[in-house]
Amino acid sequence: MSLLTDLQWRYATKKMNGATVPPEKLAYILEAARLAPSSSGLQQYKIIVISDKALLEKVKGLAYNQSQITDCSHLLVFAAWDGYSDARISSVFDYMMDERSLPHNTMDGYKKVIMELYERSGPEWQAHHAAKQSYIPFAMAIAAAAEQKVDATPIEGFLSDKLDELLKLPSSGYRSTVLLPLGYREEAGDWLVKMKKVRTPMAAFVTEMTLADAADTAELPMAQNLDVYIQD
Amino acid sequence: MSLLTDLQWRYATKKMNGATVPPEKLAYILEAARLAPSSSGLQQYKIIVISDKALLEKVKGLAYNQSQITDCSHLLVFAAWDGYSDARISSVFDYMMDERSLPHNTMDGYKKVIMELYERSGPEWQAHHAAKQSYIPFAMAIAAAAEQKVDATPIEGFLSDKLDELLKLPSSGYRSTVLLPLGYREEAGDWLVKMKKVRTPMAAFVTEMTLADAADTAELPMAQNLDVYIQD
Repeated sequence: MSLLTDLQWRYATKKMNGATVPPEKLAYILEAARLAPSSSGLQQYKIIVISDKALLEKVKGLAYNQSQITDCSHLLVFAAWDGYSDARISSVFDYMMDERSLPHNTMDGYKKVIMELYERSGPEWQAHHAAKQSYIPFAMAIAAAAEQKVDATPIEGFLSDKLDELLKLPSSGYRSTVLLPLGYREEAGDWLVKMKKVRTPMAAFVTEMTLADAADTAELPMAQNLDVYIQD
Repeated sequence: MSLLTDLQWRYATKKMNGATVPPEKLAYILEAARLAPSSSGLQQYKIIVISDKALLEKVKGLAYNQSQITDCSHLLVFAAWDGYSDARISSVFDYMMDERSLPHNTMDGYKKVIMELYERSGPEWQAHHAAKQSYIPFAMAIAAAAEQKVDATPIEGFLSDKLDELLKLPSSGYRSTVLLPLGYREEAGDWLVKMKKVRTPMAAFVTEMTLADAADTAELPMAQNLDVYIQD
């Protein structure tokens, strides 16, 4: 098997059969998400796992009543930081430096650069920026589930403000971004499983460019270098 | 090999050696990105591939002079729609219906729902929303590269407005979102390769919740159902 065959196998499962994903497979999928890279290595996201049917019923009511929310084995709720602050960033960087046996101030110059960018960009941009990062572990979880022959349904259709309230996210400084029910397909009740997977043809998806195709700009190289910072 | 071992192997390569990624590996990585799921199946993104050194020099100057931009084999520039329109969405859905031998109007109700959401949310939100989707193929490309033992460096540090201008993106309705140089590590010159990979411990990354942990909201289920639509 390979990632390509896994991605061909997977689809946004429309009907699940309620069977349970074994703990070792769930752990595998969560570990793939945890290993995802993120902007500046900040891992500005977390995952809430829900398998309690009573809570899933409430979530389903906030997600257009999509049946996978309650027919899944486990629901992964991805949530991202609602904004950046010096304290929040320092907390991650300090931990990273401790793990790498480096002094805490190793990242000070870099932290200053990104904090200036974040502050200049405003709170709404910050929340979007953190939310974008959560799509990387989201994708890794989708790929890992497919590899483990666990079905999954990427879901953006839900009332995020109300879900945040239900899961008490605002007080912890997080906002829900995407949902991923994990479980097993029930083919008989799933209208999508037999349909062709449709993607943009490669010729339209990818464009190759050379200098001759580019605009004739006379931009000077940036004075600032960023290649000396600790991320992953 | 497995996705987890691939994700352990990869890191944000800081120094590349200039060696060329063979065409079949490049094609594999691009195909993994192409197979990524996206919100409503819209695939609201594309990839620009650059291997021309003269153009890469210009890009490097807009990306804090990060050496991987010119020492890579191929640079993938991920770009996302700058906004949503009925025509743009119809174009994707019509193609999807053709491929599935379904009438074009199959998606009309669903399209109306998402267009209302997009219009209500405004142009800036739309661009962020499309950009978020591009992080899914971005992550798939990172995973595929690792599987193929191709190094890659996820890069957000660049002047996107200026890069858009250089690559003539605005006239095509796209904005650059993230960069991914592909190539091979030069261990001797790479300060990160020997460092420990640091991630949030699993106990902090994942929280399990039950109804007892949730807020005591009396929210009624949504009247609207979304489970009858064609995505992937």
